Amino acid sequence: MLLMIPGPVHLHERIQLAMAKPMIGHRTKDFSEILEYCTEMLKKLFGTKHDVFIISGSGTAGMEAAIACFSKVKRITCIDNGKFGDRLGKIAERYTEVDVVRFEWGKSIELDEVEKSLAEGSEALAFVHNETSTGILNPARELAKIAKKYDALVIMDGITSVGGDYVAMDEWGVDVAIVGSQKCIGAPPGLCAVAVNDRAWEFYNEKCPFYLDLKAYKKKLEDWQTPYTPAVSLFFALQEALKIIEEEGLENRIRRHRELSAFVRKWVEEAGLELFPELNEYSQYSNTVTAIKMPEGITDKELRGELKEKYGILISGGQEHLKGKIFRIGTMGNVTIRDVVTTLACIERILVKRGIIKPVLGEIEA
Amino acid sequence: MLLMIPGPVHLHERIQLAMAKPMIGHRTKDFSEILEYCTEMLKKLFGTKHDVFIISGSGTAGMEAAIACFSKVKRITCIDNGKFGDRLGKIAERYTEVDVVRFEWGKSIELDEVEKSLAEGSEALAFVHNETSTGILNPARELAKIAKKYDALVIMDGITSVGGDYVAMDEWGVDVAIVGSQKCIGAPPGLCAVAVNDRAWEFYNEKCPFYLDLKAYKKKLEDWQTPYTPAVSLFFALQEALKIIEEEGLENRIRRHRELSAFVRKWVEEAGLELFPELNEYSQYSNTVTAIKMPEGITDKELRGELKEKYGILISGGQEHLKGKIFRIGTMGNVTIRDVVTTLACIERILVKRGIIKPVLGEIEA
Repeated sequence: MLLMIPGPVHLHERIQLAMAKPMIGHRTKDFSEILEYCTEMLKKLFGTKHDVFIISGSGTAGMEAAIACFSKVKRITCIDNGKFGDRLGKIAERYTEVDVVRFEWGKSIELDEVEKSLAEGSEALAFVHNETSTGILNPARELAKIAKKYDALVIMDGITSVGGDYVAMDEWGVDVAIVGSQKCIGAPPGLCAVAVNDRAWEFYNEKCPFYLDLKAYKKKLEDWQTPYTPAVSLFFALQEALKIIEEEGLENRIRRHRELSAFVRKWVEEAGLELFPELNEYSQYSNTVTAIKMPEGITDKELRGELKEKYGILISGGQEHLKGKIFRIGTMGNVTIRDVVTTLACIERILVKRGIIKPVLGEIEA
Repeated sequence: MLLMIPGPVHLHERIQLAMAKPMIGHRTKDFSEILEYCTEMLKKLFGTKHDVFIISGSGTAGMEAAIACFSKVKRITCIDNGKFGDRLGKIAERYTEVDVVRFEWGKSIELDEVEKSLAEGSEALAFVHNETSTGILNPARELAKIAKKYDALVIMDGITSVGGDYVAMDEWGVDVAIVGSQKCIGAPPGLCAVAVNDRAWEFYNEKCPFYLDLKAYKKKLEDWQTPYTPAVSLFFALQEALKIIEEEGLENRIRRHRELSAFVRKWVEEAGLELFPELNEYSQYSNTVTAIKMPEGITDKELRGELKEKYGILISGGQEHLKGKIFRIGTMGNVTIRDVVTTLACIERILVKRGIIKPVLGEIEA
């Protein structure tokens, strides 16, 4: 099965095989070296000189660590213009007062509404950089800038941008950021990382979950160790994934993500299909996942079903109320132009057969 | 390196290779089938007909899920006769009032002291079944029985007993129990599971961590799904590890763990060394890890150092204040009599060379 969903991504063979290595003890120099390498490489991906803590858990564990550990705030503003923004708010509710600034899923963030919420007394702002559920790249730099006007802590979910698109945490003034292993980094799911600058610790809440308490991670990282037994095999995989990134070069990698997503969008346009996101002057189309409106004349089940059963390609549908209304194609991780062409060619066959579009793939310039 | 530490354990080749499989989408029938198989098999290992939830995270994540989700209690009694009992108390402190009943590490639990704490008004009891840090098997059945006298919820950390020693959660009256993947089950670290009976939900605390909220796991399990992206590769490994358990047969597996640990203890006795735990009438030596007092004439660094550097065998030292005072040999997972003989033979060579013991391994009956 060719995975073209927005994570978990198809694994590079080297990454698959890395997991087949014999187990090692985690309280050893061997493991510390892996942890150090991964931590230092992730700092480059986040664009930070500050701390990065790797947690054995899904991206959601990272979201909760980021919010819970730094929730000593009177109120936090959470931006919801998609499923993962919605999740940030739901997590934050467990720790402090929350003001959710909502936009219809697929719509862009209006900066003045965010500013209004901050001005009303929020001490922190949490948002999703790349909203996977709708295919929008939210304006991280601008959001951080507004938050700074109100001296608010900035927490950014970079789960599906870090490692695949440009992220410059320190430069943008983002205090806390999160990434997941199974997205742009190209590793299997099960690890996440939280980048934390010095300022964030002023907001440290000692009532955060024990397992996600980043203070314990910080202390153990002095010896390049984790506080609890790490998912060692996944670290083997992460190390290999980061080596592949190092070999490719981060700039080349970002360019590849941008070119491949641009290719998908070009095909959508040429085929007369419609992209789902409604952009404003600050937001952009995501470079790691493209959300496309389901055309008339075919159902989600037919499109994704035939693609999966006949062609062995997995793409995503819409989530929650978007189910059936959109389909999503990931261009994340170690995905190649061949993977993208393969996917579009098969989708095109399905749609052409039903008379929904005309064939255009052959003529698109890449 | 031969891992003879009490987890992560040395992996069976089949389990290593399972992780090298290509990634699959987690919102698929393929993944649901794996989750269903793992869940149903784990129920047998826990000895329960109730729910089992698998979390992507370390054993500590499971401990926290078990305590946090069911912490709607006025007070919880936590038993500390080792490092992991101590951890239960530290986790519980974040959620409710705690009474820690402490015994010196290495000493056995005195049931009357536990009963006293319960009688003083605890609504829950948490304890570690197999205390890895000291090599004691605590009396789960008796502890559950006492708790029931006071109608208290019973939470048992079975991280290093489930799958390697006899556990009968439903029969004993344990309401919530925990296991880790990298111990007796023989899989890599990074997954844990929490077994929960119906009664536990009366104590559900909706302010538990979002990521560890077992109510969300319960809801998604209706469709054989997890609420957040699972560590798919580790599920491949867990599935294979559980197949190996099915092939071996749980009874045979428990017998093997008991025989191999008995072999280690027999060697300790014959060699004139001393086991660390002080048993009373209710407690037993652990069948999954043996803790031995460091003999005079050698340091921890010398013993474990030479064993690692010269012979390529990793065993564990003592934790916290027991560092340097004991060493620990795991007999967990898919460990064989050859692994045990290898380990003891090399330790014997190190100790005989220094005139600390006489060679005895050749003559021990197995």
